[in-house]
Amino acid sequence: MSRPIRLTAEFLGTLFLLAGVVGSGIMGENLADGNVAIALLANTVATGAILAVLIVVIGPLSGAHFNPAVTVVFLMRREIGAWMALGYIAAQISGGICGTWLAHAMFELEVIQTSSTSRSGGAQALAEVVATFGLLATILGCLSAAPRWVGPMVGLYIAAAYWFTASTSFANPAVTIARSLTDTFSGIAPIDAPMFIVAQFVGAILCWIAFHLVARSKTSQ
Amino acid sequence: MSRPIRLTAEFLGTLFLLAGVVGSGIMGENLADGNVAIALLANTVATGAILAVLIVVIGPLSGAHFNPAVTVVFLMRREIGAWMALGYIAAQISGGICGTWLAHAMFELEVIQTSSTSRSGGAQALAEVVATFGLLATILGCLSAAPRWVGPMVGLYIAAAYWFTASTSFANPAVTIARSLTDTFSGIAPIDAPMFIVAQFVGAILCWIAFHLVARSKTSQ
Amino acid sequence: MSRPIRLTAEFLGTLFLLAGVVGSGIMGENLADGNVAIALLANTVATGAILAVLIVVIGPLSGAHFNPAVTVVFLMRREIGAWMALGYIAAQISGGICGTWLAHAMFELEVIQTSSTSRSGGAQALAEVVATFGLLATILGCLSAAPRWVGPMVGLYIAAAYWFTASTSFANPAVTIARSLTDTFSGIAPIDAPMFIVAQFVGAILCWIAFHLVARSKTSQ
Amino acid sequence: MSRPIRLTAEFLGTLFLLAGVVGSGIMGENLADGNVAIALLANTVATGAILAVLIVVIGPLSGAHFNPAVTVVFLMRREIGAWMALGYIAAQISGGICGTWLAHAMFELEVIQTSSTSRSGGAQALAEVVATFGLLATILGCLSAAPRWVGPMVGLYIAAAYWFTASTSFANPAVTIARSLTDTFSGIAPIDAPMFIVAQFVGAILCWIAFHLVARSKTSQ
Repeated sequence: MSRPIRLTAEFLGTLFLLAGVVGSGIMGENLADGNVAIALLANTVATGAILAVLIVVIGPLSGAHFNPAVTVVFLMRREIGAWMALGYIAAQISGGICGTWLAHAMFELEVIQTSSTSRSGGAQALAEVVATFGLLATILGCLSAAPRWVGPMVGLYIAAAYWFTASTSFANPAVTIARSLTDTFSGIAPIDAPMFIVAQFVGAILCWIAFHLVARSKTSQ
Repeated sequence: MSRPIRLTAEFLGTLFLLAGVVGSGIMGENLADGNVAIALLANTVATGAILAVLIVVIGPLSGAHFNPAVTVVFLMRREIGAWMALGYIAAQISGGICGTWLAHAMFELEVIQTSSTSRSGGAQALAEVVATFGLLATILGCLSAAPRWVGPMVGLYIAAAYWFTASTSFANPAVTIARSLTDTFSGIAPIDAPMFIVAQFVGAILCWIAFHLVARSKTSQ
Repeated sequence: MSRPIRLTAEFLGTLFLLAGVVGSGIMGENLADGNVAIALLANTVATGAILAVLIVVIGPLSGAHFNPAVTVVFLMRREIGAWMALGYIAAQISGGICGTWLAHAMFELEVIQTSSTSRSGGAQALAEVVATFGLLATILGCLSAAPRWVGPMVGLYIAAAYWFTASTSFANPAVTIARSLTDTFSGIAPIDAPMFIVAQFVGAILCWIAFHLVARSKTSQ
Repeated sequence: MSRPIRLTAEFLGTLFLLAGVVGSGIMGENLADGNVAIALLANTVATGAILAVLIVVIGPLSGAHFNPAVTVVFLMRREIGAWMALGYIAAQISGGICGTWLAHAMFELEVIQTSSTSRSGGAQALAEVVATFGLLATILGCLSAAPRWVGPMVGLYIAAAYWFTASTSFANPAVTIARSLTDTFSGIAPIDAPMFIVAQFVGAILCWIAFHLVARSKTSQ
């Protein structure tokens, strides 16, 4: 694919992903009448479903990263060049922000907001390390074991991780930035975003190391 | 396939789709005891599931459009003739209306109704543009990337869009007309239907333009 | 497959299906604290999931009918002999009853019960005709369009039909008999079972006629 | 695969499985505000989803047993050696325990706990026999009928069995041990664990016998 198509694909995909995450969070909170579990269940179904669809549809265009941590791992695997990786990350961050704003516009909220939801502490950081390690393991594992299933499997992984990681599994620096700009169900206070992002890169790189060791052990046999 | 089989397939498919949407809305509202989130969750599961099934089963007969906005895009792509497209749209609208009536009959409601649920305003129109753009992108993207997955992916997309678009994603003019004829959970007041339908065609045509530009850019390389 | 394996497969499959339907109904009702929508949602997830699994696993052994209405349609299509069809139906009915009893035993209820849940009237009969027509259309359509997807598609269809048909889609005479023997969430009073069963065979045979007409119209071209 | 990779895969897979089961139980209980059905629904979605992902991703490395009852059946089928089977079981038990502890750490709970949730009686034992019989039938059946579907089918089976077996389907001795070490939603009192484990091996071996008889009957034809 040509460079503009790839970057547009990353931009639009991350835009729809964030519209899905933020929009379904707003709808869930509006309808669930204070029952947070039901709101998160709706948020889970919508996020898992839209992720699966976006990866299947956009995968052939750009690889469907939608996530700087994923792009960095592919850079370390030398499957994407440094300049293209920078372009991807810029497209992901700007697409994510526009997706959050689109959700606000659809629900008649102020477009420009910042979140006041505190998400901090070492346990949250640990949860993001685990969440992102698992996400990368799902992606890299599927690509080698069953590449056509990567979309549904990532959707299922995130659906599970919304519940089993204490942080509800952001697992994505572009998503973290975009969600710092919404004071709704899925928001994260901007002051807490940097720790989440560091934890996400730590989890991604730990996963890269694990796969690297497995690959080396296979080659050396 | 012969013309009568194709038109019957569109009629029956849209009939079952609307029976599914309207019927599960009635059941959800009856059982959920005022909790709208749970009613919409049930409506979401039923709609996504029946859509996936209908597309897998009826796809080989008629292409499983069930949606005038989809048929118009296939007309613009010259994959269906103008007369056949007209026939499809007539079959979809009449099938959708009969599906709504069938749901009323199954639940012992007055067969002939009109909705009193107001759904209006620019944010709702924006939501329908987004919802229909995404639906067409899912269909066209899957047809080129993974044609056997189009049924499940459309089901998942609509399940997500029920929650992340503020309008609960009608995304279909035949569905909009049929849902104006039920004064139950999934209804839309007839006076609000035209704006929805215009927004749906706008979203569909925007998506056609996007795919057209990508295709041209690929050819010109 | 040999005859005893086929009959044992139908027996065990219908047994697990009913254990799934009746057991998840009991668990849902026990936990949902009077919220019928949540109980039915749990019942829906469990039934759709176990159906998909049973058809994938047992399909290669017996065809995974688990349903006299399905067996009768395959008899009319001359894909099963009359004696074998009788054996299948006997295995399905006895397996279904044992499945209900197994659910009772697992939940420490009286094994032998009869239901007191009234489900009657023309609207319920119409719902069963629609539900069974749709079930057979899903099976026959998938077998010709995408045979490997028949398990998941039947699971999705029944998940949808639990909500959009007013009768919660029994769609199966063996299931109807077995569910008349449980006075729990999924029960049906024995006096109402015959009308359900007649309606189910009507829906199944209408679907057979529809597929027969399509097949003839294709051959005559 | 080399022995260290296989054992590490079993360790990490069972670790993530338990983090998923225990973590989503904690999150569900925290958010559901006393509604056990909603907590179990969230627990169900998370467990089924993570199981499907783990089996697809780790299957090519170790076979993705994550379960001593599965490993013992493969030992009886002579598809794994005795020493390797012992290694698998040690990896599964230690991985499961670490997964429980990881969930505690992510949710800021005491890492070392024991459960006080009583789960005893003959009906619970029967439920575990049924649950484990069905799990093994799903695995062995899929491996012969549709090996690529084993991940999603096991996920769907467990999702169903969470609701239709009275014990919420532990069906796994390593899971049982690990869940005896958490005093949260998914726990089981240590004193009740041995009966669960015996029942699980009984169910697994009954299933092995059933498949053995079918295989012999095929060969003898």
